[in-house]
Amino acid sequence: MSPVDIDGSTRIYAVFGDPVKQVQTPRLINPIFAAAGCNLVAAPFHVTPSTLTATWAVFRQLSNIAGIGVTVPHKVAAARLCDSLTDAARQVGAVNSIQRHADGSMHGAQFDGIGFVQGLASARFRLKGAEILLLGAGGAGRAIAHALAAEAPARVMVMDRDPESVAFTVDLINRVAGEGIARKAGRDAGRAAVWINATPVGLKPGDEFPVELAALTPDTLVADIASLSRETELLARARELGCTTSDGNDMLNAQISLIAGFAAGHEAGSPLA
Amino acid sequence: MSPVDIDGSTRIYAVFGDPVKQVQTPRLINPIFAAAGCNLVAAPFHVTPSTLTATWAVFRQLSNIAGIGVTVPHKVAAARLCDSLTDAARQVGAVNSIQRHADGSMHGAQFDGIGFVQGLASARFRLKGAEILLLGAGGAGRAIAHALAAEAPARVMVMDRDPESVAFTVDLINRVAGEGIARKAGRDAGRAAVWINATPVGLKPGDEFPVELAALTPDTLVADIASLSRETELLARARELGCTTSDGNDMLNAQISLIAGFAAGHEAGSPLA
Repeated sequence: MSPVDIDGSTRIYAVFGDPVKQVQTPRLINPIFAAAGCNLVAAPFHVTPSTLTATWAVFRQLSNIAGIGVTVPHKVAAARLCDSLTDAARQVGAVNSIQRHADGSMHGAQFDGIGFVQGLASARFRLKGAEILLLGAGGAGRAIAHALAAEAPARVMVMDRDPESVAFTVDLINRVAGEGIARKAGRDAGRAAVWINATPVGLKPGDEFPVELAALTPDTLVADIASLSRETELLARARELGCTTSDGNDMLNAQISLIAGFAAGHEAGSPLA
Repeated sequence: MSPVDIDGSTRIYAVFGDPVKQVQTPRLINPIFAAAGCNLVAAPFHVTPSTLTATWAVFRQLSNIAGIGVTVPHKVAAARLCDSLTDAARQVGAVNSIQRHADGSMHGAQFDGIGFVQGLASARFRLKGAEILLLGAGGAGRAIAHALAAEAPARVMVMDRDPESVAFTVDLINRVAGEGIARKAGRDAGRAAVWINATPVGLKPGDEFPVELAALTPDTLVADIASLSRETELLARARELGCTTSDGNDMLNAQISLIAGFAAGHEAGSPLA
């Protein structure tokens, strides 16, 4: 944890979650605000689904609220409460950071996808022209799909237990990347040069990864967002093989300075630090 | 300002005011929480009178809100919103600190009066048996009156432009200290051995103090709550004469550790540090 100073002029970036104890944003973002000389502090608020709408209505009226960060389970519901959305947030149908404007209007953005892509660091450029396996077409998977589409992949193979989520995500990618780029993953999914796990599969010991891990090669780029503190079976195997890997910490660290800039009132996509 | 750390488990002590920029509580109390190892942080919220009720209703539902601090103009309205009150808060009819219990019930307390009395430090014992002039029978004056009454003064002379406020405050003191101890100040008010200014009179250059300042002697104990950053005419004159004086900073510093204890869940009156 890093120190922040609070006085009567401090503006608040309120992070809503249920539960909220696990949120990393205050710990990571407050040092960025402090280093930039912003009198702005992120603090957690335990907001349940049944209290979200009333809490939102109150916070938009409080003039020293700079914005709201939302995590599970509020990302989709909060998008519906926003007065305006960035392109990414609108297409994904979910937000994770909201600016409060002086008139009380709320402008929502979605940094999960761009955070994922930027978190790949130099390996980001291996997405171009690549065949990509995307496991998970829920909230995180959709955000990643939207960002992947802008990286000019050759093909994205989408896998999820829910056929509607697969269809939504395939369509999301094809609208941005071009018709036919994305499709439902088939039996040949293991041939992908980039594997992305946007689900918690592999965190629990009995979990079975739905693609044969034997298909991994040392040249596979493997990214897994579920590994803030633990390693999934996929990541462990990839690291054994010497693959280039990326995990949830990379994704989080990459997006936090974008969120800091947005919370401080910049355009979406302008980092603060 | 002093540094505090915030993570997902941090509980919030929300300070409501309108305006809120001038509030001293976060700056003063956060170092006390930190020194005591409490994962608790005070932060300002700009709550207007028209948004108080809705904001209160939301904050009582958020499980990581430890409590609420209120300043001008919310002290009386917040007392009415509380589910229970300390004796001091009930008799004064105003609160400045509220505990949120786990079931969402709100327990209000009033530390202005005890803060004033404790802020006198060793001069506190000069209240016993003394003739006291109390200028101001508004919120702060009433809180001070309540605490003065417990110090066994010989007489309290109450002065205010509003006759109803004088009557309320005289009655408040007499209920605690005994019938006849307090009365409306008359022409002989200047003979008091203790002068207390619980109004902003004397902060603006043209202000005329309603008692002849020539009546001050070096033995007068002079306290003035309106002097957080500036000196009133009364205080300046008292300091010239070499009187023992006390100002708003003494009152604030004395009550802040009581508020810290209360915010952390202690009984009212138990300091944290």
